[in-house]
Order: sequence, then C-alpha cells, then structure tokens
Amino acid sequence: MNTNVQSINTIKAVKYEEQAHKTMKCLIKKDLKKNGLDLEEGVGEPSPKFGEVKIRVLATSVCGTDKSIYNSANNAGIRHEMQRYLGDSNNYQPIIVGHEFCGIVEELGPGIIADNRINQNLRIEIGDYVTAEMHISCGHCLLCRTGNEHICTSVQVKGVHLDGCFAQYVVVPYKNVILLSKANVEKDIPIRIGAMLDAFGNAVHTVCEADVAGKSVAILGAGPLGLMTCFLCRAYGATHIYLTEAQDIERRFALGKEFGADYCIDVSKGSEVLYKTVAKNATGANGVDVVLEMSGAPSAYNDAFKIIRNGGTVILVGIAREPLAQFDIANGVIWKGATVKGIFGRKMFSTWETMLELVRTKHLNLIPKLDKILASKIYKLDEYKEAFETLSSGKEMKLVFTPNGLH
Amino acid sequence: MNTNVQSINTIKAVKYEEQAHKTMKCLIKKDLKKNGLDLEEGVGEPSPKFGEVKIRVLATSVCGTDKSIYNSANNAGIRHEMQRYLGDSNNYQPIIVGHEFCGIVEELGPGIIADNRINQNLRIEIGDYVTAEMHISCGHCLLCRTGNEHICTSVQVKGVHLDGCFAQYVVVPYKNVILLSKANVEKDIPIRIGAMLDAFGNAVHTVCEADVAGKSVAILGAGPLGLMTCFLCRAYGATHIYLTEAQDIERRFALGKEFGADYCIDVSKGSEVLYKTVAKNATGANGVDVVLEMSGAPSAYNDAFKIIRNGGTVILVGIAREPLAQFDIANGVIWKGATVKGIFGRKMFSTWETMLELVRTKHLNLIPKLDKILASKIYKLDEYKEAFETLSSGKEMKLVFTPNGLH
Amino acid sequence: MNTNVQSINTIKAVKYEEQAHKTMKCLIKKDLKKNGLDLEEGVGEPSPKFGEVKIRVLATSVCGTDKSIYNSANNAGIRHEMQRYLGDSNNYQPIIVGHEFCGIVEELGPGIIADNRINQNLRIEIGDYVTAEMHISCGHCLLCRTGNEHICTSVQVKGVHLDGCFAQYVVVPYKNVILLSKANVEKDIPIRIGAMLDAFGNAVHTVCEADVAGKSVAILGAGPLGLMTCFLCRAYGATHIYLTEAQDIERRFALGKEFGADYCIDVSKGSEVLYKTVAKNATGANGVDVVLEMSGAPSAYNDAFKIIRNGGTVILVGIAREPLAQFDIANGVIWKGATVKGIFGRKMFSTWETMLELVRTKHLNLIPKLDKILASKIYKLDEYKEAFETLSSGKEMKLVFTPNGLH
Amino acid sequence: MNTNVQSINTIKAVKYEEQAHKTMKCLIKKDLKKNGLDLEEGVGEPSPKFGEVKIRVLATSVCGTDKSIYNSANNAGIRHEMQRYLGDSNNYQPIIVGHEFCGIVEELGPGIIADNRINQNLRIEIGDYVTAEMHISCGHCLLCRTGNEHICTSVQVKGVHLDGCFAQYVVVPYKNVILLSKANVEKDIPIRIGAMLDAFGNAVHTVCEADVAGKSVAILGAGPLGLMTCFLCRAYGATHIYLTEAQDIERRFALGKEFGADYCIDVSKGSEVLYKTVAKNATGANGVDVVLEMSGAPSAYNDAFKIIRNGGTVILVGIAREPLAQFDIANGVIWKGATVKGIFGRKMFSTWETMLELVRTKHLNLIPKLDKILASKIYKLDEYKEAFETLSSGKEMKLVFTPNGLH
Repeated sequence: MNTNVQSINTIKAVKYEEQAHKTMKCLIKKDLKKNGLDLEEGVGEPSPKFGEVKIRVLATSVCGTDKSIYNSANNAGIRHEMQRYLGDSNNYQPIIVGHEFCGIVEELGPGIIADNRINQNLRIEIGDYVTAEMHISCGHCLLCRTGNEHICTSVQVKGVHLDGCFAQYVVVPYKNVILLSKANVEKDIPIRIGAMLDAFGNAVHTVCEADVAGKSVAILGAGPLGLMTCFLCRAYGATHIYLTEAQDIERRFALGKEFGADYCIDVSKGSEVLYKTVAKNATGANGVDVVLEMSGAPSAYNDAFKIIRNGGTVILVGIAREPLAQFDIANGVIWKGATVKGIFGRKMFSTWETMLELVRTKHLNLIPKLDKILASKIYKLDEYKEAFETLSSGKEMKLVFTPNGLH
Repeated sequence: MNTNVQSINTIKAVKYEEQAHKTMKCLIKKDLKKNGLDLEEGVGEPSPKFGEVKIRVLATSVCGTDKSIYNSANNAGIRHEMQRYLGDSNNYQPIIVGHEFCGIVEELGPGIIADNRINQNLRIEIGDYVTAEMHISCGHCLLCRTGNEHICTSVQVKGVHLDGCFAQYVVVPYKNVILLSKANVEKDIPIRIGAMLDAFGNAVHTVCEADVAGKSVAILGAGPLGLMTCFLCRAYGATHIYLTEAQDIERRFALGKEFGADYCIDVSKGSEVLYKTVAKNATGANGVDVVLEMSGAPSAYNDAFKIIRNGGTVILVGIAREPLAQFDIANGVIWKGATVKGIFGRKMFSTWETMLELVRTKHLNLIPKLDKILASKIYKLDEYKEAFETLSSGKEMKLVFTPNGLH
Repeated sequence: MNTNVQSINTIKAVKYEEQAHKTMKCLIKKDLKKNGLDLEEGVGEPSPKFGEVKIRVLATSVCGTDKSIYNSANNAGIRHEMQRYLGDSNNYQPIIVGHEFCGIVEELGPGIIADNRINQNLRIEIGDYVTAEMHISCGHCLLCRTGNEHICTSVQVKGVHLDGCFAQYVVVPYKNVILLSKANVEKDIPIRIGAMLDAFGNAVHTVCEADVAGKSVAILGAGPLGLMTCFLCRAYGATHIYLTEAQDIERRFALGKEFGADYCIDVSKGSEVLYKTVAKNATGANGVDVVLEMSGAPSAYNDAFKIIRNGGTVILVGIAREPLAQFDIANGVIWKGATVKGIFGRKMFSTWETMLELVRTKHLNLIPKLDKILASKIYKLDEYKEAFETLSSGKEMKLVFTPNGLH
Repeated sequence: MNTNVQSINTIKAVKYEEQAHKTMKCLIKKDLKKNGLDLEEGVGEPSPKFGEVKIRVLATSVCGTDKSIYNSANNAGIRHEMQRYLGDSNNYQPIIVGHEFCGIVEELGPGIIADNRINQNLRIEIGDYVTAEMHISCGHCLLCRTGNEHICTSVQVKGVHLDGCFAQYVVVPYKNVILLSKANVEKDIPIRIGAMLDAFGNAVHTVCEADVAGKSVAILGAGPLGLMTCFLCRAYGATHIYLTEAQDIERRFALGKEFGADYCIDVSKGSEVLYKTVAKNATGANGVDVVLEMSGAPSAYNDAFKIIRNGGTVILVGIAREPLAQFDIANGVIWKGATVKGIFGRKMFSTWETMLELVRTKHLNLIPKLDKILASKIYKLDEYKEAFETLSSGKEMKLVFTPNGLH
C-alpha cells in the first residue's frame, strides 16, 4: 500500500524468468522435494522498483538455513517454511537462495532522490559499498509500528521466501541497505567479512538482549554463532564464560578459548561435567547468571534450564527442530523466577547500528576474529557443490562465494 | 550466622512439642502419607528469639497449597516439597500448617530495641495490627544480596517447611512483619481481608511484572488469584481483558465481568473459542500483548503460547503439576520473540509496599472486591474439616479461620 | 535520498504561492516580527509527491505552540525555532500554520500501490478517516534507525517548519498517517476529538514513560496537557495524585478532581502548601514517587526536584522558556538517586498505537473526558482572531477549527 | 527498633571517650571550624553490639570526602553534612573519620550465631579477610524496603556521621560486611587494594547504570573515580571513550590511554576541543551515547548536556559544590529526550556482588589497574599530615594508611 509494501510486491514479481535483457548467474532452488540447488546463467538481472536499490554482489556467505534449503528433501521444516506464503506446495515457484552478502550499489530505483539536507555520510548512493538486512517487513502491523520490524507478523526473508543473493545482482528496499563505506571497498572491511555481517548480527542481537557485563554466561553451542557470541560476551565484560559443544570439539574449543571462554565442556556424552563445573564455580547462587542457547539441540534446552540460576536470564536463539518432549516449566522457569527471551534475526536497525560501531572501534579487533571462523578458501559460485559438501561434512563452519569473481 | 539466619534456626527449633508452659490450639500435619490435619490444643506457644516478633493470630486464610497439604496422601509433589530440607522422609517432623494471616504483635524478641530516630509510623511495636511475609530467606546467597530474597536459593516457607499460622500464635523475623495499623485493628482493614493479603500479593507481583497499561491481557484461570489479577489489570489500565476458566463458570465469570473482564471464555471443552475471540479482536498483531497464566492447567500453557502475539510477554504463575509433554518452543517463544517470566511469591518487600499503597488509595476500592472472593462464613479453627471440604467441593474459593475466636 | 527524505523536500517545495490550479483557504504566518496570522483564500492545494497522502481537513485544533506563533513578535523563542532550518531570518518564507487535525484521505501520491497481502484494516485508502503525526523525521540518523524518530536529529514539524494543517488540505508521508476509521467518520471518534489526538498523544507518551501504577504522582500544571495526564494517571493505577496550577484555578481544579486528582493545590502564591501536603502523605519516603512537569513554569522545576522522593522519577514535558537560574543538581538529583527524563512529541508510532487502543477500550471513557477540555463552540477558519483571543484570555483551554465547514 | 536500627544507635553511642579498657590509635575530627585531624592514642576499642562485627583494620584509603573533612574550615558543605543529624553545630561531637578499609574479623556481636545450613563460603567468621559497606541504612523507610538501601532517606555514613575506620578497629553491622577471603589475606587481594574497593564500587555502580556496551562514552574527570570508570567502560564494551580533565594532565591522560580512552581532552582552557572532537566522531547523531560526569566541576555539567546526543543518558556522580547558575534544561534535556540519573554510593549489595565477580575473573586484570592509581608509598597512621598534604598538592591521587602497621 505504501512504498514499503510496494517493495515486497515488486520483489515477488521479480522472478528470474521474467527478467529483462541483461542476464546473470545465480543459485536457484527449483524443487523442494529434491536436494541440491541449480546454477543458472540466463536469469535476468532484477530491476529496482519504487524505493528499491540494486546491488552488485561481491561476496555472499552461507548460513545454516542455506544448508537446510540445499538438503530440503530431508527437511520437512524448511519445506514448510519456504511454502508459507504460497499456500499450496504444488504451486511452489523457484527462488534464488541466499541472504548474507555485501556488494556495490549499482542503481537506485524511482522515488529515491538526493536530498542535500541529509548528511552525505549517511546516504546510500551509486558506488557505495554496502550490505543489507534481508528481512522484509510489512510496515503496517503493530510490530512494525512499534519498533519491532524484525518480528513483523508477516516478515518475509529474501533467499527463503523471496529472491535472494546467491546471484550477481540483488534488489532490496532502500531502508534495508546498510552503508559500509563510501566507495572504499575493503579499506575497512574485506568483502568476505562484509558478507557475514548478517550472521554476526544475530550474535550482536543476542548479547545485547542479555546484559552480560559482570555476569557469568553459559553459551550452549560453539558453531559460528556460538563462537561469535563468545568473543562478544568477552568484549562486553562477562566474568566467566562456559562454552559447550558436542562435535568438532578440538577446533571449536581452540577458538572458544582464544575468544575468551573460561570453561569449554564437551557435552557429546552427557551434561554431568557441565552441571558439576557450574555448581563448583557459581558463587552464592544455584547456577549461571545468563544462558545463551545457540545450538537448537533438544538436550541443550534441558541444560539451559538446569544450569540457569534463580532470577537468571535464558536467551533462546537456536531453533528446536521439533517440540520439546518433556519441559519442566515449574522447576526450570517458575520457581526459579527466571526470564526467558526468544531472539530472531536482527533488530531493524539498532542491531546494525551497533554492528557498525563494533566494526569502527579498534578495541574489539573484530575482523581477525571473524576471519578465524571463515574457511580460508573463497569459492566461485560454480563451486557451490564442493562448498555445500565441505560445510555438510563439518570440515568448515562458514564460507563465502564471490558471484562476480574475486574483487 | 547473623540474626537473619538465626531466625531460621530458631523457628525450626520451636517445634510444638518443645514449647514452654503456655499452650495454644493449632492445626498440624503429622503424617505426610495420610490425608487431613490434626487439631492440637496442648502445643506450647512459640517464643521469639533474636530479632523475632511473636504475633497473636486474629485471622488466617486457606490457600491452594494448604489444600494440597491437607490431601498430601494423594499429592507426591507437596510431600516432596515438605521434605525438601529434611533429607529423609522417615524423619519427617510434624509442623503447624498455614501461611496467610493477620494478628496483633504480642512480644518483641531480644535485639529489637526502640530507636526514636525511626519514624514511629514505620516501627513495629507491641499492640500493632500486622500481617507478615512467610517466606524466610537466608540473607547470604546472591539472590538475597541483590534484592531478590523472594527467590532466595534456600528460601523456606512457614507453614510448609517451618511452623506456620493455623495457630493462636506465630513468630516471624522482625523484617518480615508488615504493619497494617498502629493499634486500630479493622479500622481500615477487616481481619478477614488482612488475612488474605499474602494471596493478594501474588496477584500484585504478577501484574507489576507485566506492564499491562494500554495493553490487551489474557488471564488464564479465574480462581481467587485470577480474579484478583483481573481487577488489578483493570485498575492498572489494561484495555481489553480476556478471562478463561474451566470450572465453576457461572460464579467466576459473574465476578470476572464485575471486575472488568471484557471476554469471559469457558475452556472446559477446548480452546477454539478463545483463539477465535483473540484473533477477531487483536488489532494489527497475531495475539494479545500479555498473557498471565494463573491456572497451572497443562492445556493453559499451550493456550498461553498460542495466543501471545509476536513480541508479547507471558507471565507464568500457576504451577504445572508435571513437566509439559509437548512444548513447541520454536513457534511459541523463539520466532515470536516472546518474553517469558516465572513468578513466585511476593517481592520482599516492594510488593508489600505496593499493596499497602493499594489499600490506602480510595480509587481501587480494594476491600469490597476482596470480600467478594471470600466465603461469607468465618470459620473457627475447630471447624477446619468442614472448611477444607467446602473448598475441595468448590462451593467456596477462599475462606478464613479465626484461631482466637471472632475479634 | 530515499522516499522518506524525498517527502521532506517535497513538502518544503509545496509553498502556497507555487500551488496548482485548485485553491484553498488557510492560515499563514507571513512575518515573524508581526503578531497575528493571515487568512488566505487563493492558496493552491498541495499535491502529494512520492509516498505522500493528501488529506481534506475536517477539524484542526489549536495548541500552545500555535498561540506562540500567533504572538511571534513577542516571543523570540518561537521566532528562532521557526527559522531553524532557514539559516537567515531575512529569508523567512511564509508557511501554513497548524499541526493537530483530522480529515479524509483525498488522494494517494505515486509509489503507494495497493498490496492485497496487507490486512485491509491496516491500509490507508482514499476515503479513510485519519489523523497524522506531523513530526517529519529524516529516516537516516541514528535516532531514526534505532526506533526514536520522534527525536530525530533533524526532525521538522509541519505547521512550524513546513506547511501545516490550518488549511482545507494538507499532505503528509504515508507512514505518518494514522487510520481512525474506514469511512465511518465520527462513528467512533467525533472530528473535534480526532483533531486533538496529537495533543492527547503527548499525555500518553508522558504517562507511558513514567510507570505510575501503584505510585503517588504529582502533576505540575493543570492546562489541557496536565488534565489529560491526570485522567490517564488515574486510569493507569496511580494511587495518589497531586495536581498544581497557578491560574484559572476554579475550573481547572473542578476538572482535575473529576479526573481523579486527590489533592489540587494552588501554587500561585508559593509552594509551601504543596510541600506540606506531600510531606504529610508520603509514606516511608521523602516525597512522591513520580513528578510530571507539564507547565514549563520556572518555579515548577524547583518544586519538581523538591518533592520527588529519593529514587523517584521526574518527567519533564513543559518547556522552560529560558535557562534555570539556580538549579541544585546535587540535592535535587544526585543525592536523591533520581531519574530525570525529557519528553518531546509522541513515539513514532508506539504512542499512536497505544492511543488507538485507548480509543477502542470502553473502560477509559475517553471521548467525554476530552470533550470537557474543549470549548463547546466549534470555530470557522474565518473566526480565527476570535479563537486566538479566547485562548489568550484564558476563557478556553483548547478549541477547534473546521476549515471545510461543519461536517 | 530492630537489630538493624539498633546498630545505628549502638555505633552512635560508641564514642571514643566512652570506650572500655583496651585502647587504640585513630584519626579524629574534633572541631569542624579548624582544618586538620587529630591523632589520638587512648581511644577505647569499639565493642560490637547486637548483630555487629568488630574488625581489625589492616588498610584504609583516603577519599575526596576525607580531604574535605580535613579542610573543613574552608568547606561549608562538609561542615553542614557532618552536622546533619545533630541539629546544632555547637553540639558537634567528634568522630573518627574514614570509610574505606579492609581488615580481619576480630569479634562477632550477640545475635550472630553459626547456622550450618548457610554455605560456609558465604558466612562471616572470626579471622575472615573482609571489607565493608559504610553506608548505614535505617531498614524501615520505603527505599530500604524496596531494594534501594543506598539511598535510604536517613542513611548515615560511618566516617562522616558515625565513627569510621581511620583507626585500629571498627564495628559494622553484619550484613554490611563483605567477605574477601576465608583467612587467606592478600592471597587474592592485597590489602592496599582491599582498602579501596569502596571507591571502586562507585565506579562499578556508575558503569552498571549506564549500559555502555557498544556505545560511545564521555567520562568527564580523570581523577581516581574517572580512571576506574574508564577501564571499566573499556572492559564493558564501550566502543569509543572520550576522557576529559583540567589538571595533572600528563599523568592522568597517560593512565587514561593505558586504560582504553580513545580521546583524552584537556578542558583547562575551555571545551571547544571536546565539542569538536565529539562532533567529528559522532556517527549519525548529535553527540555521544553516554556521558558519565565524575568531576563535580560546574563547567562539566554544561559540557555533559552539550555533548550528549538526542536520546542519550547522562549519569551524574560528581557533586556540584553549589547550585548551577545557568542550566538550559530545555535544550539539554527536554528536546533531546535525554535521560539523567543521579548516582550515590554503591547498591547494597548488588554493586558489591558485581565487584567480587570482577575481582574473581582473570579477564579484567583488576589489581594491577587499581595499583596504578595508588601511591606507591604505604603510610602509617602517624604520617597522616604528610599523606593529606601529598593528596592536596596533587602529587598523588589516592593513598593508603595501615593503622596496625604493615601486614
């Protein structure tokens, strides 16, 4: 109904088969019932509609959700999610996948006109080095109207419900574009890092909700998200950090320790060591001050409410694949007087503003830390099969494509 | 170790069989494996130790927990709870039951000396009309040291773990005593009302945590606690109130409407009507702003996380008797970005300070409202069997004993 | 730079002399150095640009700021404010005054296209009965990006810096439009009330920031804003309300008592009675829990920090015309551990969402209350001189024009 | 009236001339109208009353307030403060000065009895290495009853209103004692550091109220408090720190930079450089996110409200010696939508619990940092004149006495 809404419509309409003259290369999910993706070369470039911006994709990183989409034949949950706005699974329309990226502004859609009164350092212009929030909110619901667009009741995610960024070009609404640099690509932020800021944003959102300064914190899960959360908790003044993981222990705990974890606990064979370590070190209470659940593992939910102290805070980020079979809400939440918060995405756009501050400060030393989570090899889009296999095998935790070749 | 701790010890020692010369009448739980209570007449009056106050009980009201204790043979949960600090069930020591009361200060223990510098209106003196917080905190744990004594990691409840107030006299730590009036018994607060302020405090604590002003609120459960919560939500500016109940519908919903509920929904045959009513009336979101779960019914937990809107707050007060069998934490909490809080007891002592303000203001018109929840008959301690049967049958929701006869 | 920014530009450009064929009647401030306004008839109707909405004004109410603009020759502050974005006072361009109104959507600008996916009850369409937020934010600054558009660092106010609504037509950005009713004008909200919701929003914003439930509250100033704040504090559960005023005592205090004030105190001859009343009634502390300063009177700031209790909250809404001459920040703020918050405008758009809820609930009984603050006479635009004189003389507190005649 | 209150009375009664057989050495303020202190040797040791603990003082540090007391002839403010509870200045009773210390528990007063149920690591026993909170709260007022004892309406400070710790022995209420170590003096915390934890607590309280993670912070004043605040802000994730000072620039800024300040700005010749530096570096807003005013300098208050951004938070800790002459509350607070908080003392006892966590974690590296603020020379009590002169001259910022000789 307004330009914001318009954006959704437009994007929806920008289906790859309907594109204009110029064509591009991209990764498409054609059939939800088959695993894998298809590399297409003749897809038309998207055009920005009212209030939209077209971006040339320099780098795009792969998220756990992308792995689920890749393996959709085995994952009813992601199939259901991708059909949410379609109603009918027979009716599924292929989309371009991918939602973490950075690139260069190529074109501004209609309705975006220079206003000299706005500080030039804050405006988005052609040639700018940018990333973008890929959650598209409706702009009309109560959540959108009260500063909570990230949980808009009809939020759509580019790369899941709408065309995404595993492509040479992508369009996004102007307000979703995040300015990284005025034309100095890579000066401050290498493109492999610019591509993974979206993922970093989940960690920032999580830690900002938790108030960890001067507190003991347990981080359940030492994947990319857990590890980023770990160094953030350290930077934000957590006093004692417990980090758990059940796979790829050696590498993940080496990074965890480097990122400031005090206790790295392997929970692959049960949680007793975790419970004992917490009990031994908790001072004056019956558990840790804050639990950040980043794994989505069923046993981790149990652990979270076992080790949280009375009056503590549990932040839930990892997605349980199915309902919990036994949840002791009386002992875990009520008698403990605990607070529980669900976290999804990034706050639009306060999480991004915080991220930009964290990039700018020299004290966090962010880029080398993020680099340690990334695979050293940068993949061409054509190498996507190798890339997804590397991730699935657990050889790497996070990696990046460069759809337009290395910069 | 300090006077506070001392109090716990002392009270524990004040077992009915060890009492001194003067004797009193009281209700005792002798054997957890048998239902019922015993009325004893020759129990020695308790003596206040360091920092304690002895109170003559004018009225004492019966709580759901007391019903569970009465029926302990059928309730493993309450048996477990009452033995928590004893270690061994064969070793169970009988205690005086009851934890909601009001009375007159009879004696001050050692260490309590008049200090003229303290405003006389705030001091507790012999002859004062008082009630008391019956949660005894340890004073040493992190919770006690950070303003959260109500969830002290070793809190003990008089009437559950320590001798309570279904008796002619009770002792409590000085700081737990709440001053109702300097010698003007019943002028402002009738004793039947003074006796139920502890229960009212749970409702006040709940609503204070929820921030209901200008919000839509669903209250699940229209028992005494749900009904008190209902008129408080109305007084605190809730815009739309949904109230559910599954039993004793007619009386409870009549009161609910009088107390300001907009929609009273019978959930005895399922929750569809609830869901439809919320969906019809929610404006711009996918549910209500706030859910207050006051029932402890398993289906109500399911309802709570179904009807809460994205970004909403669920306050859990009712105690689920056993772990939830299927809890969809991803859809109910995480993707909704919901906040969940467990509530137990009353904040010590900010909830009480708020309660006293609510008694003092004429605008809430508190006393007539509380009266409508109470049975009109006032019971003698000797009539306890009739009283418990009346409650168990559902004929009344809440009633009061007068251990020392009518005032 | 984006459509949002575009809107500012556009509106700025829509100067009355540049308008197209159709003309309208409006009130213009031509010369800041002369008192009064000019009624013009040949001003062109504004046209909506990208993302803007054109509204036919049914009713528009007069605010204290409008009185200041009317009397600009005597008010350096408002002259300075109105020139803020112009740089040079010789360069002042006349604008249409007025920022509180309601009306009917007449036309949608380009870029606003119907999206069927958005709930129709939330969309703005031609014929809808609406009001609007007249603060135009930049969309680019940190405040706009973090949910605080109301304090955007370059916010501009229509009717102060840009053309306003004392006119037959006005244009505003789509997102600033607030839907009151789908075509049922006056069914729920009479136009005289619809016109003053902007002012009511300041009161709602104030009370929402203050957390008054269960608290004692002093409201300094019983003008329209203080009186609306008074009934809101009552509806939101304040226990004791103190209301002060120095002029038009009889009428204002009659309304104050009707709206729930417990103590109405005339401070025209000093504040001793206020101090004594607070001291007598404060229970256990050295003042009131919350002070809401709504008057802007220099002596009221002094009162605010005298009567606030340790740990209390002072909300500042009234604008001091000049710096305070003696501000005892050590005794008033630091040693008291007080919290002070400045309030400006309405939160965009959570305050509006709350307002709509307050209109919808039957429990606040909002419309009759607002009616009591309003003058009973509805003024034609041509009667503006009489209207401003009536306000300046203090005969009325608040009144309404109908630029297109009575509906 | 209770043991808590009793404590106040008792302490008050423990005047040095009334002491029993054993005598001790201490520093006394005899006459407020004369500068200096008196070293007395024959003062009786204090005895613990109900609920009190007697502590042998190992080290005691000197605070700005002590300097004011030393120079009381020139400081009307401190004379007024010290007489606050006496009513009549002719009636002033000499007291032992000093309120920052650590020591060994020597004796437990009556009413403190071992309770084995309390974790031994949390109990205070004879021989323990401890410090103490020297703010004595009344226990009865609204603030004490709602978790805000630090701003108790009749708080008294030992060393200011009651006998303090520039002495070989001191008594304090049990609950005010903070356990540093069970008998392992200096193992974890050297006594010179244990003595200054009270001062450190002001910094911790300040930073905890401010929420600095991911924010830009200006710290006004680089004295001991400002410097401790600086390294805490760094540890708690501040992104950019501005530090100002007007004297002893070289040493203070060297420490400031070491402690993580990004911009150290000399304001001795005006604030222009501060304003320009903030304007240049503020991103997207009109100032810094958080200002911590630690200096008490009149010009610093002006700076605080100039450089705070819209929607920012100003924490006031430094005490303005007299009312501000010109305070622009409209531009500084209201239109900015700023939040202002006054901070006094330490939260009882959540600030202390946080401090103990900060001592325990290896990541803050607290002790070497505090050491850099302290004079390297440890003073005997007899050298107090030299010590106070050293502080007054600015040669040192902070120093420590050892009343019982070096440990």
